[in-house]
Amino acid sequence: MQTVIAGRETTATERIAARRHLLDLDDWRPDEMLAVMAHAEAMLRVCQQAGKLETLRGQVLVNLFYENSTRTRVSFELAGRRLGADITNVTAAASSVAKGESLIDTAKTLQALGTGIFVIRSGQSGAADLLARHVSGTVINAGDGWHAHPSQALLDLFTLRHHLGNLAGRRVVIVGDILHSRVARSNVWSLTALGAQVVLCGPPTLLPASARALYAERPVPGTETTRCVTVESCLERALAGADAVMVLQAGLLPSLREYTARWGLTPERLRLARPRAPVLHPGPMNEGVEIDAAVAHGAASVIEEQVSNGVAVRMAVLDLLAGKEARA
Amino acid sequence: MQTVIAGRETTATERIAARRHLLDLDDWRPDEMLAVMAHAEAMLRVCQQAGKLETLRGQVLVNLFYENSTRTRVSFELAGRRLGADITNVTAAASSVAKGESLIDTAKTLQALGTGIFVIRSGQSGAADLLARHVSGTVINAGDGWHAHPSQALLDLFTLRHHLGNLAGRRVVIVGDILHSRVARSNVWSLTALGAQVVLCGPPTLLPASARALYAERPVPGTETTRCVTVESCLERALAGADAVMVLQAGLLPSLREYTARWGLTPERLRLARPRAPVLHPGPMNEGVEIDAAVAHGAASVIEEQVSNGVAVRMAVLDLLAGKEARA
Amino acid sequence: MQTVIAGRETTATERIAARRHLLDLDDWRPDEMLAVMAHAEAMLRVCQQAGKLETLRGQVLVNLFYENSTRTRVSFELAGRRLGADITNVTAAASSVAKGESLIDTAKTLQALGTGIFVIRSGQSGAADLLARHVSGTVINAGDGWHAHPSQALLDLFTLRHHLGNLAGRRVVIVGDILHSRVARSNVWSLTALGAQVVLCGPPTLLPASARALYAERPVPGTETTRCVTVESCLERALAGADAVMVLQAGLLPSLREYTARWGLTPERLRLARPRAPVLHPGPMNEGVEIDAAVAHGAASVIEEQVSNGVAVRMAVLDLLAGKEARA
Repeated sequence: MQTVIAGRETTATERIAARRHLLDLDDWRPDEMLAVMAHAEAMLRVCQQAGKLETLRGQVLVNLFYENSTRTRVSFELAGRRLGADITNVTAAASSVAKGESLIDTAKTLQALGTGIFVIRSGQSGAADLLARHVSGTVINAGDGWHAHPSQALLDLFTLRHHLGNLAGRRVVIVGDILHSRVARSNVWSLTALGAQVVLCGPPTLLPASARALYAERPVPGTETTRCVTVESCLERALAGADAVMVLQAGLLPSLREYTARWGLTPERLRLARPRAPVLHPGPMNEGVEIDAAVAHGAASVIEEQVSNGVAVRMAVLDLLAGKEARA
Repeated sequence: MQTVIAGRETTATERIAARRHLLDLDDWRPDEMLAVMAHAEAMLRVCQQAGKLETLRGQVLVNLFYENSTRTRVSFELAGRRLGADITNVTAAASSVAKGESLIDTAKTLQALGTGIFVIRSGQSGAADLLARHVSGTVINAGDGWHAHPSQALLDLFTLRHHLGNLAGRRVVIVGDILHSRVARSNVWSLTALGAQVVLCGPPTLLPASARALYAERPVPGTETTRCVTVESCLERALAGADAVMVLQAGLLPSLREYTARWGLTPERLRLARPRAPVLHPGPMNEGVEIDAAVAHGAASVIEEQVSNGVAVRMAVLDLLAGKEARA
Repeated sequence: MQTVIAGRETTATERIAARRHLLDLDDWRPDEMLAVMAHAEAMLRVCQQAGKLETLRGQVLVNLFYENSTRTRVSFELAGRRLGADITNVTAAASSVAKGESLIDTAKTLQALGTGIFVIRSGQSGAADLLARHVSGTVINAGDGWHAHPSQALLDLFTLRHHLGNLAGRRVVIVGDILHSRVARSNVWSLTALGAQVVLCGPPTLLPASARALYAERPVPGTETTRCVTVESCLERALAGADAVMVLQAGLLPSLREYTARWGLTPERLRLARPRAPVLHPGPMNEGVEIDAAVAHGAASVIEEQVSNGVAVRMAVLDLLAGKEARA
């Protein structure tokens, strides 16, 4: 990453533009994430006023979705439209992928067709990185296997900062199947980079053996900061004094009943956290499984805000990576 | 329904804007329907000149289609585009609905994503009403189970008025499986509100036991008028002196052959109606079953006009419910 | 085809506009194809500058795809969008086609909905011609059965001319299952019309019995030229001195291994052609079957250029057939 241009330090915005892609957040500097946050505030106002911009006019954004996701696909679609891009959706089912065409061949064809922005979602970890090595435009990872989901982590960050302000020293509990969660993984990078203490909580078999080896030993780029991540299988202990709780979708588990009994977020358990600690969930929720309906729709829930913020945060990411100024 | 603002009577246009939704026509006043008709004339000219408006610019319209329908989906899509809206399509098959997410959760997510206009089609009667109680934008019922299909009834009204002028005292025959038809039901409300005499015709087992109980006892809002609806199982008797004939799609019937023999609209039977009585069909048609090909494509058929008028009428509905002036 | 207007010879552009449809190229004059080529150059510059035009503003283009094809569908979608059209996609799976509605009924409904441009792809030879007889707008054949794929042939022509300049006397080899290839068929008409010598190569059972009867006896419209087409089952002999090679997708063949052994394009075989002879493929490719990966991604391959050129050529076709000037 180039940090000096023409004898002066580069700005965070210039460095984001130079990245060209959003693949994960492990190598992002805190000031870059904060630049996304600041730009997302402006984009949120555009959304609230039903406004439209033209910074992606003439650009083609393709949603290349090998996994279904109405939420994320529509979020990127509306973000792109609000910036004036032409959007096309390519899903595995409807495409030549079904005939066995490889991801790279499909992407090269879409690039030759004029696509400059690839939003890719895939069940294969590393799919977005692979794409970024083979196309010349911007690649945005909209979720790849168990690996990363950085735009989700950025919208979570935006939502948390709306409620908690500065995250330094804040205790954020992520509860669920941590081991197989791309949402958890990307959130660890962003939250710790901004100084939060992350507590990973869930069934012992679904927790990483060592959070230290995975995360703590990778310093925050551009800073002297080390990352603070701990592991705790007891939800009650994890929640004690928590500033925020992020609940993950319960997926394939040996016993949903046992999972709910020990790791489901109930109003009683939530009371162990600090007063007004916000509750997040990336959706779609299984109410009554990983989260009680009273929590999901209660005063602490910021789950709908996450969805709304998602459009603004994705507009900010698209604009900073591929908008008119980024290309200038 | 508020009918007085600042000491003066509200206009029909103001009352439509205050409704916010189009769920069914049973509670619409005649002057409100006529206001839609007048606005649709202006929209028809916009379509004919391939013009575009900007009254929904920045607004997001979602086609939330749990039942397939190219015709209706494309009609709303083109109507929305011509008004400058951003359109996104969500179908059951491609969405998280497949994973069991409820209608309300899907709608709340779409709302949080910025959707202001929900066009919903569902096999479940009441789906649109349910949605309208849970979202803050505009809900348009594009067909829900056996219940209602009000935009279809409004485009039928528009088409009939083009051919018959004032409908007061006109005899309109609706023939088919009345009991299970949302098209018939919504048409009864609109046609009788404007003074037409509706004759419901079909196999006795597919006719309501009492049209009086269902319709005649519900007065037309804002007027002293009572609704005129009769039931007649003999098609020949129904057609005698009819001013217009609306044919419904034959669906699940014990014997299609018997149905065609007794209730299929042939050129011979059509001659029992008044000269130049227009023939309508909501489509798609089963030619040779409920309608003879010679009638479907004959001089009396206004079936393609219905489709063309549909875009203009839906533009009018969208604009009056959610356009710039409605939101002002 | 009217060739005189108001006492003067019509221009090629006027004659293209008068055609209204692009069904196949067998009856196109060379100067008309060259007019498309010239206009496509201008459109290519618009694409390269991420520019947008408004010549189809207010017009509705429907992609009516009874066969899946991400490549061709997205190509027409982006071409239409760049000209300002409103695009809607109708696929067989999602449409009333599934309920048995005929092509003509579907098309008439789409026309009544306001569609002025039908881009149709179908497994049925003649589907586009059928449509053109029943709708009043513009029909573009995006591939129909074994019959024709004229927009592909025009983009192939554009790509070949970029590399070879004037095609008169040039030897172009088309290798594959000629008999069942709409790509081969349409290319024969365009290439021979511009003076190229076409060599059709493939397994003897998949070659036409007589290229003379099929092609050579049909003179080039507007000229005295006869078409030059020969048949050659030996790929090595076909390639000797070739100026360009067009490889077709291997489809249903009794033995892929034998096919690859005798008709697969390897680097060794390609060396039999002239130095820098471009290699084309309509995609999607089966690498290792009809084309070696080293050829597909080698210096001679212009396959990605074909895809890029496709958008520009389709913009040119759409604009010349249905744009503002064509309608004037």
